[in-house]
Amino acid sequence: MNLDNIRIVLVNTSHPGNIGAVARAMKNMGLKNLYLVEPRQFPDEQAQWRAAAASDVLDRAVLSSSLAEAVADCQFVVGTSARGRRIPWPLLDPRHCAQRMAEASSREQVAVVFGREDRGLTNDELQLCNLHLNIPTSADYSSLNLAMAVQIVCYELRMLLEADTLPQREDEQWDTPFSSSENMERFYQHLEQTLVDIEFLDPAAPRQLMSRLRRLYGRVRLDEMELNILRGILTETQKFVPRPVAEGE
Amino acid sequence: MNLDNIRIVLVNTSHPGNIGAVARAMKNMGLKNLYLVEPRQFPDEQAQWRAAAASDVLDRAVLSSSLAEAVADCQFVVGTSARGRRIPWPLLDPRHCAQRMAEASSREQVAVVFGREDRGLTNDELQLCNLHLNIPTSADYSSLNLAMAVQIVCYELRMLLEADTLPQREDEQWDTPFSSSENMERFYQHLEQTLVDIEFLDPAAPRQLMSRLRRLYGRVRLDEMELNILRGILTETQKFVPRPVAEGE
Repeated sequence: MNLDNIRIVLVNTSHPGNIGAVARAMKNMGLKNLYLVEPRQFPDEQAQWRAAAASDVLDRAVLSSSLAEAVADCQFVVGTSARGRRIPWPLLDPRHCAQRMAEASSREQVAVVFGREDRGLTNDELQLCNLHLNIPTSADYSSLNLAMAVQIVCYELRMLLEADTLPQREDEQWDTPFSSSENMERFYQHLEQTLVDIEFLDPAAPRQLMSRLRRLYGRVRLDEMELNILRGILTETQKFVPRPVAEGE
Repeated sequence: MNLDNIRIVLVNTSHPGNIGAVARAMKNMGLKNLYLVEPRQFPDEQAQWRAAAASDVLDRAVLSSSLAEAVADCQFVVGTSARGRRIPWPLLDPRHCAQRMAEASSREQVAVVFGREDRGLTNDELQLCNLHLNIPTSADYSSLNLAMAVQIVCYELRMLLEADTLPQREDEQWDTPFSSSENMERFYQHLEQTLVDIEFLDPAAPRQLMSRLRRLYGRVRLDEMELNILRGILTETQKFVPRPVAEGE
């Protein structure tokens, strides 16, 4: 996968601010190739402002007089489209589509084409594309902001790029080793003894107390440091419990 | 999964326009519960304008005086965070996190908390959360626009909601059945005969021509209508080839 071989193509963008927001969305996810097919106005101050620290993407943006020109050297062209065209075209959601773009980008030039804010891409423009991409939306309000659509597609590409480094489990990047079963058993014994000492637990009628506490701490998976903190609390607590005087003293 | 049990919480948003963009991003993906913790300014004209057709989300937005208040009735609270906190918290990417939120939302109230445009969430605010969410970004420019971050999280929730309906293959929603192997063989015979008739293919030295053409049409998977169109072209082509006069005529 090579993000440098993937370009974002905007056709007839009306609001310069959107071009800036697109540039930022791209750079946030590591894309840098922006092609503009006859934007209403560019370069533009509003575009620069919305691009924030991504003005370099605007500076290197390529202006084209037609979509055909903007994708002329691309081997794989994807067009964003609403669902249900008269003649259904090969269609994928952003996730499956990003997979296809990523594969192609290793060897080929790839373009993702986004249409006008109000009307999207024409049928002729969509027929320049190998594949159509549809972003799922609520039926109540399906009109996505242009930059948001670009953000979602760039995000999917980023997720593929980082697939190997992302945490698969929420505690994968932990700072302390988790407790062994043996240490947990010592903790439960210490906890139970302390609860007896402070007369919270009656050994004659333990009910389900220890089961509940085992389920709680078992669910949370304590790390070694957390275990030491809890055992320290138990030890300090026990110090306040008067010990019976041993015989002969 | 129940999107109505998931709320988006914005803490100390500076730019009212961002609140509007967030409302639109939410409604596009089918979320409607927006909580605002002490925004700099709200209600606001710019917010209404950016919300476009999602002004109803703004109208029903709940103003809170603290994050604790905004999430008081939630059983599962997720905070968006940059990576690498001093004390690592349970951390997931938007995809794994959306899975967890979706599961919880069937029975519980879920909150996703987004921080200030410039500084995100404080450590105290992040420690109100069960889980932290990190959106992968390019190291060159990791500062996501607030509404973009919300859009990505809402998109992941939408993808889960529509998982069963999304096309798994690009030609899943096709309008015409694909050709059977038998019909493809008839087509290849018709194609080969036509190429012989027009003297493009020399039966004495066929080279790899038919193999190349079989690979081409095999790769594309023709549907029945496409097959009929191609065979019609072949038939019309053959009419231009003068037939040898049969004996006895």
